[in-house]
Amino acid sequence: MYKAPVKDISFTLKHVAGLKPALDAGTFGDLGEDIVDAILAEAGRFASEEVAPLYKIGDEHGAVLRDAAVTMPPGWKELYRRWIDGGWNALSGPEEFGGQGLPTMLAVAALEMWNSAAMAFGIGPTLSMGAVEALDKHASEALKEKYLAKLVSGEWMGTMNLTEPQAGSDLAALRTRAEPAGDGTYRIFGQKIFITYGEHDFTDNIVHLVLARLSDAPAGTRGISLFLVPKFLVGDDGALGARNDVFCSGLEHKLGIHASPTCTMIYGDGFQGTTPGAIGWLIGEENKGLACMFTMMNNARLAVGMQGVAVAETATQKAIAYANARRQGKASDYSGSGMAPIVHHPDVQRNLLTMKALTQIARAISYSCAHALDRARVGEGEAAANWRDRANLLTPLAKAFSTDVGVEVASLGVQVHGGMGFIEETGAAALYRDARIAPIYEGTNGIQAIDLVARKLPLGGGEHVHQYIGELKAMADAVRTSNIDGFGRTADNLDGALTDLDEATRFLQTLMADGKADAAMAGATPYLRLISLAAGGAYLAQGGLADRGRIALCRFFAENLLGETRALKERVIDGSESLAAAGRALISA
Amino acid sequence: MYKAPVKDISFTLKHVAGLKPALDAGTFGDLGEDIVDAILAEAGRFASEEVAPLYKIGDEHGAVLRDAAVTMPPGWKELYRRWIDGGWNALSGPEEFGGQGLPTMLAVAALEMWNSAAMAFGIGPTLSMGAVEALDKHASEALKEKYLAKLVSGEWMGTMNLTEPQAGSDLAALRTRAEPAGDGTYRIFGQKIFITYGEHDFTDNIVHLVLARLSDAPAGTRGISLFLVPKFLVGDDGALGARNDVFCSGLEHKLGIHASPTCTMIYGDGFQGTTPGAIGWLIGEENKGLACMFTMMNNARLAVGMQGVAVAETATQKAIAYANARRQGKASDYSGSGMAPIVHHPDVQRNLLTMKALTQIARAISYSCAHALDRARVGEGEAAANWRDRANLLTPLAKAFSTDVGVEVASLGVQVHGGMGFIEETGAAALYRDARIAPIYEGTNGIQAIDLVARKLPLGGGEHVHQYIGELKAMADAVRTSNIDGFGRTADNLDGALTDLDEATRFLQTLMADGKADAAMAGATPYLRLISLAAGGAYLAQGGLADRGRIALCRFFAENLLGETRALKERVIDGSESLAAAGRALISA
Repeated sequence: MYKAPVKDISFTLKHVAGLKPALDAGTFGDLGEDIVDAILAEAGRFASEEVAPLYKIGDEHGAVLRDAAVTMPPGWKELYRRWIDGGWNALSGPEEFGGQGLPTMLAVAALEMWNSAAMAFGIGPTLSMGAVEALDKHASEALKEKYLAKLVSGEWMGTMNLTEPQAGSDLAALRTRAEPAGDGTYRIFGQKIFITYGEHDFTDNIVHLVLARLSDAPAGTRGISLFLVPKFLVGDDGALGARNDVFCSGLEHKLGIHASPTCTMIYGDGFQGTTPGAIGWLIGEENKGLACMFTMMNNARLAVGMQGVAVAETATQKAIAYANARRQGKASDYSGSGMAPIVHHPDVQRNLLTMKALTQIARAISYSCAHALDRARVGEGEAAANWRDRANLLTPLAKAFSTDVGVEVASLGVQVHGGMGFIEETGAAALYRDARIAPIYEGTNGIQAIDLVARKLPLGGGEHVHQYIGELKAMADAVRTSNIDGFGRTADNLDGALTDLDEATRFLQTLMADGKADAAMAGATPYLRLISLAAGGAYLAQGGLADRGRIALCRFFAENLLGETRALKERVIDGSESLAAAGRALISA
Repeated sequence: MYKAPVKDISFTLKHVAGLKPALDAGTFGDLGEDIVDAILAEAGRFASEEVAPLYKIGDEHGAVLRDAAVTMPPGWKELYRRWIDGGWNALSGPEEFGGQGLPTMLAVAALEMWNSAAMAFGIGPTLSMGAVEALDKHASEALKEKYLAKLVSGEWMGTMNLTEPQAGSDLAALRTRAEPAGDGTYRIFGQKIFITYGEHDFTDNIVHLVLARLSDAPAGTRGISLFLVPKFLVGDDGALGARNDVFCSGLEHKLGIHASPTCTMIYGDGFQGTTPGAIGWLIGEENKGLACMFTMMNNARLAVGMQGVAVAETATQKAIAYANARRQGKASDYSGSGMAPIVHHPDVQRNLLTMKALTQIARAISYSCAHALDRARVGEGEAAANWRDRANLLTPLAKAFSTDVGVEVASLGVQVHGGMGFIEETGAAALYRDARIAPIYEGTNGIQAIDLVARKLPLGGGEHVHQYIGELKAMADAVRTSNIDGFGRTADNLDGALTDLDEATRFLQTLMADGKADAAMAGATPYLRLISLAAGGAYLAQGGLADRGRIALCRFFAENLLGETRALKERVIDGSESLAAAGRALISA
């Protein structure tokens, strides 16, 4: 059973991702370590004691659709109620609408814990908070007045409606129509798929944010507008009125996160006797919907990254516990009676340490991204802009690297369990199933890698990434000058990895400058892993310098896993030509 | 839908794994290319047209237990009947009992196809063939007379009963008891778990091979005997008699291969009114059961390796088909109308080429292992012994590397499908589920790596592995002297990988010679992947030299994936100290 690693989380926030110096400098007003620790402890308690026990019933029972209504698994509605009553939904919401306005770092740390306890639970509020942010930034005051407070408290939930059957990664292809009704509202017609928490019984109302196209809109992404479409219309007094013409017509039968309803949503079919045409309100300007949606998407990407960290953490805990309990064979360092716990076997230790190290570096990267978001928000001028660049740079790493780690670690977790890992009752297999969605939704990891190379490496005139690499190098230098024996070859190996990173970065920047986009895109995925591993190694080192108890794992990572960066660099620099040559043969005649 | 890659399989058998020169030299008597090709084509047809269409119902329906009887999914019993009627079970069985005595290479190629079509179908006959081999080598003539012909034809199936709750990887711990009945038979009492196809309705009788301990047996693995325990006793006339006291008491609820019944078997409980004590016959000598079982296990390991190749092949086919059909975004080399098929995107091509290359090298390694088994069988004296060493060396690679590849490729396959990959109906997720068992059963991949380092590197006084590396180097040299431009940096990169392999091999051999087993075991898993990647690169090169159409993929592998060997070598040589240091902290107080 998951036990929230509050100490690890707190340490990483404060000493690796930058929260402690920020608190000490008063960056977040009078927020202090005591409040931070109290919040983390209570979130940890809620996740471990309230959410985690409902995981299994959620996985086994799933969400159930009947007559366009979705019933959540037994106990889940009550869980959600306790969760919003605890104020957890409002943690980072805007204060003017009842939110606590706490730093994103804290929200993200809490999010990790909800997702560790049950990914299918964590994903719903994630999207709801994205809707809050999009409304807060782009909606009219009237819409904010009507919807925001209830979305912030969690009394209502919000959704993101982007995908259509022909429009997944490429939103330019979307076809859902919006027609002005003449009274300031619009009528929405179309079908959306893969809508997470599109329908459920957690809340009385659901607020859908929907991308659609006006009839006179330009083709492509410049002709997409964003609309607010409530499940029930809301009166000026806030009371729920008529049922709107948006209905769930199907739930997907998925590999994992069974309790998360993944809905097909039909807009404007006049279902259940409603007047055909879902009534919607424009958010922001016409044809500028994608920009509004990107506000949600960036935060959702970091949030999905947390799912990767979260599932990796749970899988690691479970595997370590199993390896300490399960006894097979003899071990040279085990002198007890009977067979040795398998945790004594070096090969099992390799798996467990790999799981642990990958989880920790994914967490460090993701929290650092959250930190940058916070500093951009509270900062001013050039400094804030620089933090904004940092958040933008780290978002694809947080999303893609962390979720790849989630899959990798969950798979190792099954392996550590041996035959028991393949049996559903053990729970390791369920994590392996759940983990698999995170590299896909909110922009596939391939899309993240392309985003990193095409849009993030050019930040700050191409200098921002080098500033970041410089900061990572300073961490390696700090290890060298520390002269602490336990670090082994950490400093040298980090230097090597950062040199690989530097070379690969300049190579890709040159390709992009020379207009060789295909060759650059061919290297995008290995580059994303390269920068993540190098950064992760530096973060582990920083953690080791702050707490000697963390040096051994840092060294294990540096001497066992960091060596991959050279192969990744070579893949980036030397790989694209052969990829292009062999790739042609994949295309059907 | 799976379409058997008969051309690829035939090519790899003949031109990479050594079948063509062996056929030309008359190694397998009058077996010629024409017969080989006819068998492969017909197996391919059967797998694609008969087995594959029943995959989905097998996955969805699963095997069902009721009153100790297991019903297979609809249509599966009839499928099995058609399959044995086609003579497929008898392909490599001993000729004196009705088998066709064909080379293991052909049996393994066919096995790949059955497993590609449905892993849950392929695993049953795999174990049955293992039982045939163990009986053929170790059983008395009387037992052979009674059981072998029907096991070879497939009229009956055989099982392997090893695992008990406390005895998985460590068979020394097993407790199932055998008591001599005084009439030459024994009574067996105990519980076995994870028994694949322990009960089903494919055949009228099931022949269990069971490891058990006599009451006066020494402790540990030297006190284990092997028994034959039929579900129904068999009269001297071959007719089925009384029900024996062996029953299935439960089926596991598994992540994948749902149609494969994974049974808990109870021996000797007097269930259903049987006389308590399952009646068994000793196979081989008392207390020598493990040696008999190893006969089965080695072949089963190669067979499970084929499951890795098989699932990787199916996942690759499915992903390539999807990537050609699914359209999203624009691509520079696509000039058609509308959105480009995603196969045009370099990042998608990287995933697909990685899948393809890994599948091909796992196949090449596995077929080469089968070739070595064949040559050991038909050869004589020192040459045969050398081939036996080769088979022993390659078995852990074929098992562990191929099954790791199965998981890796199936996961990439889900990714290529995007959101559709997470939906069960698409079928990509089912492969990801199925693939996960293969690295676990028949000796976890960690056990394989330990076997490789501890028992296979010392073969031939430690020289055999260097002979193998020398052969691989000759393939790299052949690429260099070929002067074919399309190979790019293949020769240089292969040289590098083989140097890494050579260094890591000598390092581990020295550790073992110095009695530093823990340090060697710490490097076992990375070493297994290192030798597999280096060998795989050489096999792809050999294929490229034989068929220019295969050079592009060989070069992609050499310039994109082979670079991992350096990191693996460093992990082997530099990684164990930090692993041991960090590993201690994993052990609960």
